Amino acid sequence: MTRSDANGGRTTVDNAQLALLLEVSGTPKPGNVDRHRDLEDLRFEHFLAGAVGARRGLQEAAEGGTVGAAFEQAVAGMATQRGGNTQFGCLLLLVPLIKAAAGRSLTPAGVQSVVESTTVDDAVDFYRAFEHVDVAVDDPPPEADDLDVRRGSDAADTLRKRSLTLSDIMALSADPDDRIGDGNAREWVSGFERTFRAADALLADEGLVGDRAARVFVDLLAERPDTHVATSHGEAAAREVSKRAAAVEGDLAAAAELSDEFVEDGYNPGTTADITAAALFVALERGLPV
Amino acid sequence: MTRSDANGGRTTVDNAQLALLLEVSGTPKPGNVDRHRDLEDLRFEHFLAGAVGARRGLQEAAEGGTVGAAFEQAVAGMATQRGGNTQFGCLLLLVPLIKAAAGRSLTPAGVQSVVESTTVDDAVDFYRAFEHVDVAVDDPPPEADDLDVRRGSDAADTLRKRSLTLSDIMALSADPDDRIGDGNAREWVSGFERTFRAADALLADEGLVGDRAARVFVDLLAERPDTHVATSHGEAAAREVSKRAAAVEGDLAAAAELSDEFVEDGYNPGTTADITAAALFVALERGLPV
Repeated sequence: MTRSDANGGRTTVDNAQLALLLEVSGTPKPGNVDRHRDLEDLRFEHFLAGAVGARRGLQEAAEGGTVGAAFEQAVAGMATQRGGNTQFGCLLLLVPLIKAAAGRSLTPAGVQSVVESTTVDDAVDFYRAFEHVDVAVDDPPPEADDLDVRRGSDAADTLRKRSLTLSDIMALSADPDDRIGDGNAREWVSGFERTFRAADALLADEGLVGDRAARVFVDLLAERPDTHVATSHGEAAAREVSKRAAAVEGDLAAAAELSDEFVEDGYNPGTTADITAAALFVALERGLPV
Repeated sequence: MTRSDANGGRTTVDNAQLALLLEVSGTPKPGNVDRHRDLEDLRFEHFLAGAVGARRGLQEAAEGGTVGAAFEQAVAGMATQRGGNTQFGCLLLLVPLIKAAAGRSLTPAGVQSVVESTTVDDAVDFYRAFEHVDVAVDDPPPEADDLDVRRGSDAADTLRKRSLTLSDIMALSADPDDRIGDGNAREWVSGFERTFRAADALLADEGLVGDRAARVFVDLLAERPDTHVATSHGEAAAREVSKRAAAVEGDLAAAAELSDEFVEDGYNPGTTADITAAALFVALERGLPV
């Protein structure tokens, strides 16, 4: 078992689980569930239970399981609570990062190598994971209808026939024509560029972890429109949400006000939370003190 | 691995870890860290990290490890954060309960059988656990000075010479002459009487888990003076704290007011929180929905 000496004996899996818990606890994270905010059917407790249930899958990733199988296991475990999808996107980022860390190469190149090693089986398992929980996704373009993730296991034939690896699937989602694209897929194909940058920001920041997480979240949201907001409310709304986040400029009181407004408008920047969780994991592995 | 069918596939260890997380999240729990309250050097994040770090020890308990070894491992893992003692007492209650659950006998008789099976080695491991973290304890009576838990490993010779099992040690602490006694030790020697009763109350209650946990906490505190308050502030203060908790009568708004007052006075009813966590575990195993 990999232990991170920088952090008092926590293992890589401990740090991944703790990252999930610290992410949902960091407050204020405008529009999202956090330590001080529940949404109507999605509550703080659901995220706690999701982080507990996901653990076996994260362990599988650390112990040499394939990305797809570990991810599917983590999602199945996460779904053992009544709130529905709490951390699907977080887990999609954490699994390859855990594998990179377990191989002692938690770097952009290290995780890129994990991504590039994914297979068609990983893609099949990834699709199967969508059967455990409802995930908000955009309709695919008509020509990619047979790759709609909502097909779950039924997409297996197409994936095998076209020899599509999980890395290929992510590349297709990362940068579709004239759309914002999937922010998590973009991490997958970019060596987790924003994740590592946000981890540096968490480590360079000062003060309580929850405050650092909130600041990083708002900065990430300001930097790039959130996929989940774009999926639920359209691209114009997602760009507007980012513009409003940019006005916060690291002021947590302003972020708290924005939080009230976003919840009222139903804006829920879930993808930005995913990247925040991934960044917390990297930062914990590198010695972020808790 | 034992899975609790009543709760969507969570294992016994998952439920124990989730109980730790739900305990600290339930709010308002007057005087304690909770979802909406930090103390000066003891923060919500420390409890999250404690619950993550404790997991390996809880796992050991579920997989047939001895009570003492599993407990010491859990405490060592819990201590991998900067807040100090977050969940020592919770773990002391959870470990025998987990062993009872793993043996499919999570009942007063089942846990009593686990307690009665403890050995001198368990007692030695228990003392060793005090070396991982500072725990607030009362001075022992002069004639029991060589059994002061603060001796840690140095008490081993005395324990072996006198053939004291961990169950014997708990019996000594549960009901000392003319003092309130250790509330957790009392659970150990009474078949976890208050724990099971509080679990029934959690299951019979309605509404959100965090609210149920808060109500059970206040009721437990009203029912019996808290050991941790008695240790830090004296027995008269502990009795007064319980009297004030009794006035809350299940009203969470009144509990929130009391919380402000207790924090101001430095009253921190930690033992009552331990029993709340243990009760949450039993309730989760029996199907408390999250």
